[in-house]
Amino acid sequence: MQRPSFADALFNPRAIALIGVSDDAGKTAGRPLRFLRKHGYAGPIYPINPNRSAVQGERAYAGVGEAPGPIDHAYILVNTPAVEAAVAACAEAGVAVATILASGFAEAGDAGRERQRKIVEIARGGGLRLVGPNSLGVINTWAPLALTANAAFAADTLPRGRLAVLSQSGSLIGTLVSRGAARGIGFGKLISVGNEADLSVGEIGAALAEDPDTDAFLLFLETIRARDEMARFAALARRAAKPIIAYKLGRSEVGQALAVSHTGAMVGSDAAVDAFLRRHGILRVDHLETLLEAAPLVVGRNPPTGRNRRVGVIATTGGGAATVVDRLGLLGVEVTPPSADTLAKLRAVNVPPQSGPIIDVTLAGTRYDVMRPALDILIDAPEFALVLVTIGSSAQFNPELAVKPIVDCAREKKPLAVFLTPQADETLRLLAQHGIAAFRTPEACADAIAAYLAWHEPPPASGARPETITRAAALLRAAQAQGEVLDERQSLALFEALGIPVARSHVFDAAAPPPALPFPFPVAAKVLSPDIIHKTDAGGVALEIATASDLGEQARALVAAARSRHPAARIEGVLVQPMERGIAEVLVGYHLDAQAGPVVTVGMGGTLAEIYRDYAVRTAPVSAAEAAEMIADVRGFAVLRGHRGKPPGDVDALAEAIAALSTLAGLSEPAVLEAEINPLIVRPAGKGVVAVDGVVRLAPAQR
Amino acid sequence: MQRPSFADALFNPRAIALIGVSDDAGKTAGRPLRFLRKHGYAGPIYPINPNRSAVQGERAYAGVGEAPGPIDHAYILVNTPAVEAAVAACAEAGVAVATILASGFAEAGDAGRERQRKIVEIARGGGLRLVGPNSLGVINTWAPLALTANAAFAADTLPRGRLAVLSQSGSLIGTLVSRGAARGIGFGKLISVGNEADLSVGEIGAALAEDPDTDAFLLFLETIRARDEMARFAALARRAAKPIIAYKLGRSEVGQALAVSHTGAMVGSDAAVDAFLRRHGILRVDHLETLLEAAPLVVGRNPPTGRNRRVGVIATTGGGAATVVDRLGLLGVEVTPPSADTLAKLRAVNVPPQSGPIIDVTLAGTRYDVMRPALDILIDAPEFALVLVTIGSSAQFNPELAVKPIVDCAREKKPLAVFLTPQADETLRLLAQHGIAAFRTPEACADAIAAYLAWHEPPPASGARPETITRAAALLRAAQAQGEVLDERQSLALFEALGIPVARSHVFDAAAPPPALPFPFPVAAKVLSPDIIHKTDAGGVALEIATASDLGEQARALVAAARSRHPAARIEGVLVQPMERGIAEVLVGYHLDAQAGPVVTVGMGGTLAEIYRDYAVRTAPVSAAEAAEMIADVRGFAVLRGHRGKPPGDVDALAEAIAALSTLAGLSEPAVLEAEINPLIVRPAGKGVVAVDGVVRLAPAQR
Repeated sequence: MQRPSFADALFNPRAIALIGVSDDAGKTAGRPLRFLRKHGYAGPIYPINPNRSAVQGERAYAGVGEAPGPIDHAYILVNTPAVEAAVAACAEAGVAVATILASGFAEAGDAGRERQRKIVEIARGGGLRLVGPNSLGVINTWAPLALTANAAFAADTLPRGRLAVLSQSGSLIGTLVSRGAARGIGFGKLISVGNEADLSVGEIGAALAEDPDTDAFLLFLETIRARDEMARFAALARRAAKPIIAYKLGRSEVGQALAVSHTGAMVGSDAAVDAFLRRHGILRVDHLETLLEAAPLVVGRNPPTGRNRRVGVIATTGGGAATVVDRLGLLGVEVTPPSADTLAKLRAVNVPPQSGPIIDVTLAGTRYDVMRPALDILIDAPEFALVLVTIGSSAQFNPELAVKPIVDCAREKKPLAVFLTPQADETLRLLAQHGIAAFRTPEACADAIAAYLAWHEPPPASGARPETITRAAALLRAAQAQGEVLDERQSLALFEALGIPVARSHVFDAAAPPPALPFPFPVAAKVLSPDIIHKTDAGGVALEIATASDLGEQARALVAAARSRHPAARIEGVLVQPMERGIAEVLVGYHLDAQAGPVVTVGMGGTLAEIYRDYAVRTAPVSAAEAAEMIADVRGFAVLRGHRGKPPGDVDALAEAIAALSTLAGLSEPAVLEAEINPLIVRPAGKGVVAVDGVVRLAPAQR
Repeated sequence: MQRPSFADALFNPRAIALIGVSDDAGKTAGRPLRFLRKHGYAGPIYPINPNRSAVQGERAYAGVGEAPGPIDHAYILVNTPAVEAAVAACAEAGVAVATILASGFAEAGDAGRERQRKIVEIARGGGLRLVGPNSLGVINTWAPLALTANAAFAADTLPRGRLAVLSQSGSLIGTLVSRGAARGIGFGKLISVGNEADLSVGEIGAALAEDPDTDAFLLFLETIRARDEMARFAALARRAAKPIIAYKLGRSEVGQALAVSHTGAMVGSDAAVDAFLRRHGILRVDHLETLLEAAPLVVGRNPPTGRNRRVGVIATTGGGAATVVDRLGLLGVEVTPPSADTLAKLRAVNVPPQSGPIIDVTLAGTRYDVMRPALDILIDAPEFALVLVTIGSSAQFNPELAVKPIVDCAREKKPLAVFLTPQADETLRLLAQHGIAAFRTPEACADAIAAYLAWHEPPPASGARPETITRAAALLRAAQAQGEVLDERQSLALFEALGIPVARSHVFDAAAPPPALPFPFPVAAKVLSPDIIHKTDAGGVALEIATASDLGEQARALVAAARSRHPAARIEGVLVQPMERGIAEVLVGYHLDAQAGPVVTVGMGGTLAEIYRDYAVRTAPVSAAEAAEMIADVRGFAVLRGHRGKPPGDVDALAEAIAALSTLAGLSEPAVLEAEINPLIVRPAGKGVVAVDGVVRLAPAQR
């Protein structure tokens, strides 16, 4: 028997071994056997337990090698110390995939990391693929296969469906299945990926991109471990028109800390993760239940195109609809009244006259013959990208009045989001059965609508011309000889090589008399040292110097101050620049995020961006068009947009500078860890931008 | 029979009239009779219908006056145009309370407002109290009384409970009742207050403050119409130790617009409403389901005291708990690991060693004999103000393991919030039955916890000394003679009268030679006019004037610019001040909010406060201690708190200035509509503050 693909072994194994399975069907290590049988797995199951000849009444084998037939998938249920031997046995026995339940690996300090490295090494040596450690298992309702220790699968039935779940939390799979079952939402494949020591979310997802039983993917993420595989998955899923929806922990600082300690992952910024997901066309939801509820909005659809991202609202209860609309307002979604044309059509079908953005048919219009034509009119109305329908009490007792029209209308043309105000479980089930997005809470409903409207086709690839990269790389290799941190002069030279306008500058020795400058006074003088990053704090900056003699005096003072505060710093001289002026001082940064990889950031200079978390982040590189979107996202850039009748700034030149800095992502040797232009001065429209200071840090040289 | 109190007539009427009741029990105007009978109302019901001798098989009467007995409560179900006559008939017949279903009153333009005024006038003349118009009715499950047209009461049972609901949305009552019924949460009294033409949320609530069947109040608000009554209600409820929890629409601009158009209310600022609720000890929740779920956190409890507002977390599923904790982090709630002492106690009861803030007992610890002692330890741990418990799959199939310990533990000492990750309806019911706060979604759970921890005892009353008020009032009366807007000099004089330090200033005529100044150069010069509010935009400000001759020249230029841009403005001269310098420029404002009444605001000067919505708002007056809390709430005031090693600002003096301006709330004639110090310059700690500019607008003089 030839080894199957890892995906077949995972989801459609022809034979299964349960290594270390417990005789007690109630214990965690006993459940997989019980659940496999309960939910009707059809192939051979080999319980492996060296201490017993029978487990839960079934014949047990002393080792994987003793099993009477070949094994596609082994679930390793033994304690942490015994995992290594079990992995080795699987590799030797020609098992295709082993899923590991135990914890105590990468999430458990140095010893755990070493333990994990070892099992991966053994598996790779033997052609074995691993899921986990820390995996609660794999489910395929279509096989059927319930190879899992998750207690939720004690439920009597597994509602089938066409959603695939890939989760870094094992317990969450149970949450989704049990909540889904209660309202008729079923799943096809579910996998608890655990630590992703070998198989990652991305690699597993990519293998399922063409799966005929899957319409969409739901991800529960605590971190992003293998971003390139995730990006490949996203591209394949996009090509197959199968949307990916993600819920990711780590939006708050405490949440980030949890994700790190819980999974042994590296910390990265949530804004960078957001940028990564957006770049790859993955929808991100903010509420846990939205992950369960949002899929029908996107299944079979492409991202909305163009500028129309407005929501039309129809309701049998204005107050109920207002709870969603108020929240949509908070999320920045545009909710607008229908056009005059649409209003006229609505009047013709007996919808009462309306004033605001909510079309309230009221109790009087809670009838099939009003709701049905009204829905068709809104679905056809070109002013709306999505229609929100809110149904009140009638959803519970009289679904024939206002719910049936939703089921019957021509909804393939436009997504419908339905919020039911009462407890109406039967109606939720009915809508799920018809593939209609229905929501239990106004908050999840608004969350899903906002995620749908923020969904974009991934932008076309961008990047620098090869000669720019070559020039920048040469410059960095030369700088690298002196250390990993570039000084201001070197940093400005790099920015210039990338095509960013930089301030003219001149370096001189403070001990010598001040030189003749190639530019007029007033000037700024700064101490030049790769070892002093915060020059201002070190007393190393003097501004508005008006004369040559003043320059000489200030230069000596700067160096003296820097020497006294940073005695060990290498001081290379004093850098002088003309005083550059503009409309705003901006920070443009590039760095390698631990989760998302290369990202570019823009925000106001100074402390405001930090205090208000007011910056835009995208994965690098970005085109100038994407950079322009970033600029539009920064609230503090109101000043650049011609705030209060003042002249606007040169946002085109700023966008070009952001795009230019972002091309650092194309450099691999030496790689840039971090590069920051701070400040970049933005002049009035048409007058350009100029970088006046910055810092660059390289990755340690590869050997 | 004497007229009962309006509260008795509302909730325990001895006899009911249904005016205009329909023979069709399925129609809105037919439902109240059906629901009264269905849910067992015991007193006489008099259907009133001049066109029929019987309605739904019951004897009908031609008019209220024809009913064979006295009527406590009439539900007026007739169409809008017929309401006035029905109200008049009720007044004449000595009915105590009439509830009005029809819409088309204050929410429907001028004609509707007039219609509403008229019925209130008639009712007042006849000693009749009104609920509505736009009211879906009144329910008292203990009576029992289901005097409502809300379709949700077609349900077969009305679960009883000890929560009272007062709602400006009628449909929301059905939402709460049906959702509550599904999980064992019952209600005592529910009322749809409609337009509050006569009886307001506050007056009805106040009448229920001592109600023995009520433990807590839930409010669904679209606006605040009668704030003084609301404040009185809050005070009485507080005295009776009955918490009030509010969900209020209008957080977004579109939501505010809806509230206005839907209910005919006035628009106010959501931040002001927030301040109002906080001032009166009313908890505000952000999610609709939280309104249903949060009450057990507060029933029978006082607001948390002191600085300990930290949350302890125990879970059988770390991933599930993380969904709540991540959200708590976003809401600014502090989630911390247990103390060393607590950890030692936990180890002694077999809780595995923990690192982060979540005590994860894991599958192995999902047992009564681990969870029960662990819960008792956390409840006793002094480092936590509240304990969050998250239960995974076992909540669905094995509540005896980790849910029963919650029911059994000594939870009267500290609030417990329970989040269940699976669908576990039976367990939700069990917890509700035991008065334990249980949540279906991590978001509502975090919302409720944040609301509980933000709950404060209302602050003691504050305000100005009478002589300050007298002085300020005299000054304003004098200014009022010249118009409703004070000029800068008058405004500064008012601030000074309130005890706020103001910049020295000198006014002169620009046509005359510049005078000798009582302070040194450099100075600022500003055109003085009550008609020019935005002096800078009008070219009416010159800064850093260094010499007398420059002052003369600039003064003429200012006046010329102001004249050319505002030809009609009264120009009273040029106001000169020393250039005042400090650490930050701050805006301190006072105004009368349409919903919340007098409020005081503080934020950074310039455009930032507006761009980032970064200001603190409280109802006025505030004490200096409350003002200090306001300062702490403004993120941009990092600069005043000694940001990055810089000297801190005089926040004590700033707090005094805020408190002083807020005492304007004590002035009634003339009343101040709006007063703004912009900027107030904050000097380094110990050096005080100084108001350099401002504007004051008075209410039109009363006749």
